[in-house]
Amino acid sequence: MAEKTVKEITSMDEDFTQWYTDICLKAELVDYSSVKGCMIIRPYGYAIWENIQKNMDAMFKATGHENVYMPMFIPESLLQKEKDHVEGFAPEVALVTKGGQEPLAEPLVVRPTSETLFCEHFSHIVQSWRDLPKLYNQWCSVVRWEKTTRPFLRSREFLWQEGHTVHATAEEAKEETIRMLNIYTDFCKNYLAMPVIQGQKTESDKFAGAEATYAIEALMHDGVALQAGTSHYFGDGFPKAFNIQYTDKNNKLQYCYETSWGVTTRLIGAFIMVHGDNNGLVIPPRIAPTQVVVIPVAMHKAGVLDKAGEIRDRLAAAGLRVKMDDSEQSPGWKFAEYEMKGVPVRLEIGPRDIENNVCVIARRDTGEKMTVSLDEITSFLPQLLDTIHDDMYKRAEERRDAMTYVAHNKEELKEITDSKQGFIKTMWCGDPECEDAVREEFGVRSRCIPFDQENLGDKCVCCGKPAKYMLYWGKQY
Amino acid sequence: MAEKTVKEITSMDEDFTQWYTDICLKAELVDYSSVKGCMIIRPYGYAIWENIQKNMDAMFKATGHENVYMPMFIPESLLQKEKDHVEGFAPEVALVTKGGQEPLAEPLVVRPTSETLFCEHFSHIVQSWRDLPKLYNQWCSVVRWEKTTRPFLRSREFLWQEGHTVHATAEEAKEETIRMLNIYTDFCKNYLAMPVIQGQKTESDKFAGAEATYAIEALMHDGVALQAGTSHYFGDGFPKAFNIQYTDKNNKLQYCYETSWGVTTRLIGAFIMVHGDNNGLVIPPRIAPTQVVVIPVAMHKAGVLDKAGEIRDRLAAAGLRVKMDDSEQSPGWKFAEYEMKGVPVRLEIGPRDIENNVCVIARRDTGEKMTVSLDEITSFLPQLLDTIHDDMYKRAEERRDAMTYVAHNKEELKEITDSKQGFIKTMWCGDPECEDAVREEFGVRSRCIPFDQENLGDKCVCCGKPAKYMLYWGKQY
Repeated sequence: MAEKTVKEITSMDEDFTQWYTDICLKAELVDYSSVKGCMIIRPYGYAIWENIQKNMDAMFKATGHENVYMPMFIPESLLQKEKDHVEGFAPEVALVTKGGQEPLAEPLVVRPTSETLFCEHFSHIVQSWRDLPKLYNQWCSVVRWEKTTRPFLRSREFLWQEGHTVHATAEEAKEETIRMLNIYTDFCKNYLAMPVIQGQKTESDKFAGAEATYAIEALMHDGVALQAGTSHYFGDGFPKAFNIQYTDKNNKLQYCYETSWGVTTRLIGAFIMVHGDNNGLVIPPRIAPTQVVVIPVAMHKAGVLDKAGEIRDRLAAAGLRVKMDDSEQSPGWKFAEYEMKGVPVRLEIGPRDIENNVCVIARRDTGEKMTVSLDEITSFLPQLLDTIHDDMYKRAEERRDAMTYVAHNKEELKEITDSKQGFIKTMWCGDPECEDAVREEFGVRSRCIPFDQENLGDKCVCCGKPAKYMLYWGKQY
Repeated sequence: MAEKTVKEITSMDEDFTQWYTDICLKAELVDYSSVKGCMIIRPYGYAIWENIQKNMDAMFKATGHENVYMPMFIPESLLQKEKDHVEGFAPEVALVTKGGQEPLAEPLVVRPTSETLFCEHFSHIVQSWRDLPKLYNQWCSVVRWEKTTRPFLRSREFLWQEGHTVHATAEEAKEETIRMLNIYTDFCKNYLAMPVIQGQKTESDKFAGAEATYAIEALMHDGVALQAGTSHYFGDGFPKAFNIQYTDKNNKLQYCYETSWGVTTRLIGAFIMVHGDNNGLVIPPRIAPTQVVVIPVAMHKAGVLDKAGEIRDRLAAAGLRVKMDDSEQSPGWKFAEYEMKGVPVRLEIGPRDIENNVCVIARRDTGEKMTVSLDEITSFLPQLLDTIHDDMYKRAEERRDAMTYVAHNKEELKEITDSKQGFIKTMWCGDPECEDAVREEFGVRSRCIPFDQENLGDKCVCCGKPAKYMLYWGKQY
């Protein structure tokens, strides 16, 4: 219950799971509370989420999406309107059964996702082709009664965004589904410096109620895969269950087509496990709450604090997120602290530097140190942050590619899964029985049928019959 | 349940309550759903809330506050730790009693407010004077099991922000309480063009668990008062209940002092009822989702749409929130539509205007029309929006002052409450019995003991005994 104090971060080679939890606590991203299965997102963690929100929200709005807010409660009968959907979610809902000291006539589900509420609303507001499309999104929290808890990866309540759109035609809805998957992919690349595989989920991994589910899959430092975002094409299933119809240009009544798509605070867990190292967090520069930390050295000496403050102000004026630490701790303590907290760049300034009109700049990602003229820092640092971003992406991609294996048959699958962890590419016949067999025998699950199909042969890795798809497999978070 | 279609907005003189609801629905700010007591905030309403959030959040951050996220559930036993607090909230909570198809060992309260969660967290993270103050805020929704529903004013779930801060001394905590009340006051003035009275709530109107509650009170068009924001000083009551202690500079253990403060989506209801008129919404320019709507007239004529688009792009580049409506509706329909939706400025552009290098600009607040050179619009319109803001504030203040009455005794109270609606200023002895008597006899409640005390005599309006305070009274939303 009480805050777990982390003295030293466990080495990731020794115990990756413990390394991850240590970082989340020691970097003050989260805290536990007496609310079982839920977590507190502390200022440093929430500032990261705010940067994710701000940048992703701008991408949503640039593509015509609008934000709304739906109630957090769903009457049980409303959740039950779409058969597959309720089957998927009923086992893990939280139920409100009392309100204002009275038992409720009908229990309310705390939203696990809001398809049903959006559908009901769409059925009110969509009448004509002129009302279409509606491109809605909401930022909120949802609740799913999980049995285990891991910061950002799995908790009973988590923060996310859920997009819900309704269209006149199947084509338009399909386009939207892929458009949003591409936005997630771009976001992961351009803000989280995280490469992802785009693909379609197999039938057995589809979202409850969807015709097709698409996902982006990332590979963590330990070779375990993480689903970082999903985008669902619903066809007209929900519209038929909720009677969402419109009059087309020929005055004929038609059913609508829908999509939904979401990412969660999991994205934070994802980049921690992609970029972090044994010294702690390594935060991608474009979402880092602090991009540059200015540390005055020998700060009691005349002029040092003034100069450090002046540098901070110049960098802030240049649009950087910058912080100066003039606390009483030693420079060495501060170096270790901001390294652990993953601040992309440290700027040291002491009396001799001031004499020479320079400062020392250290990169968090590589540890590299440079001496830079104070006249150049406002142009040098924004470029350096871009370089760090690009280098982080490249290293993550190389690591992932080095941990991606190919198996043509069960023997090769066994050899890989016995000794290695990572993505495994195979051909697959498309039969869910083979999917199940591989999972049971080798402990890996299908990740997705990637958009980038490769021809690795013509036989299913499991049954040897003619292959239909190339598929990614892996262990998963 | 289905969306109520509003053909004509009811006149506010005829039925103010209906006028308000008509506006909320017809301007597409909200919709109802099958979730009783809750509302859907539609894109136009949510965009207003986003503008409120963005600007207020910047004011919080400029004064050193950080955002966090606490769980939405509170174990019943945690809520019960502070006696007054639980007494105030227990009657109106929603209870989760089942999760993952199992009954819960301990029911969870859906947060009605989060003092208890913040307190528990503070007790984990505050050890030394170096850890203080902690200035936290969260944007979230809360649930209170209300019996009646009115859009933005009263609903079972509503959006808000709740600030929670912990300090080393009572003085610092008291300063914080007033600082935040001042921020709310400035926000109402500078963003909502809404004058408010600042003051302290009487003992009987204090927040459950607070030592002192301060509020800002606004007066609606119909003379009914609305509490627009509150700021609470807790003293060390919660810290003692939750054992939040720190070691001071002399190495002595001390209890902390706390505050909390909040505003809600009520602010939207408030400005609607302060500025709206019989044609619909009048949105204050600085939070309007669209500040200027460009309407091409005779848009099938050559060059009109191009020119209108060029104007829109120039205004957007100048930093204005601008929209062009080139839909197939008639200009007259569009004029009425954006008037009803409260867009501060309409810009009309037709073939003859283009010939003369001018456009017609109409103010929503006054209806005034002006002809302005196209060369000047990017400097003229930002100034005009400021003028509109200032004029809206001035008119609201004048109206409020004209609806503020003074009563020296029960006879005068009777005369005023029989024939008028508005604020009533009186002297008061400070006895809660007099407060109750006035409420029962005249149907008005104490609003606040204003910071700006006036001397209206030396006798209590109710009992005639020596007066301690000047007090505002009124009917309330």
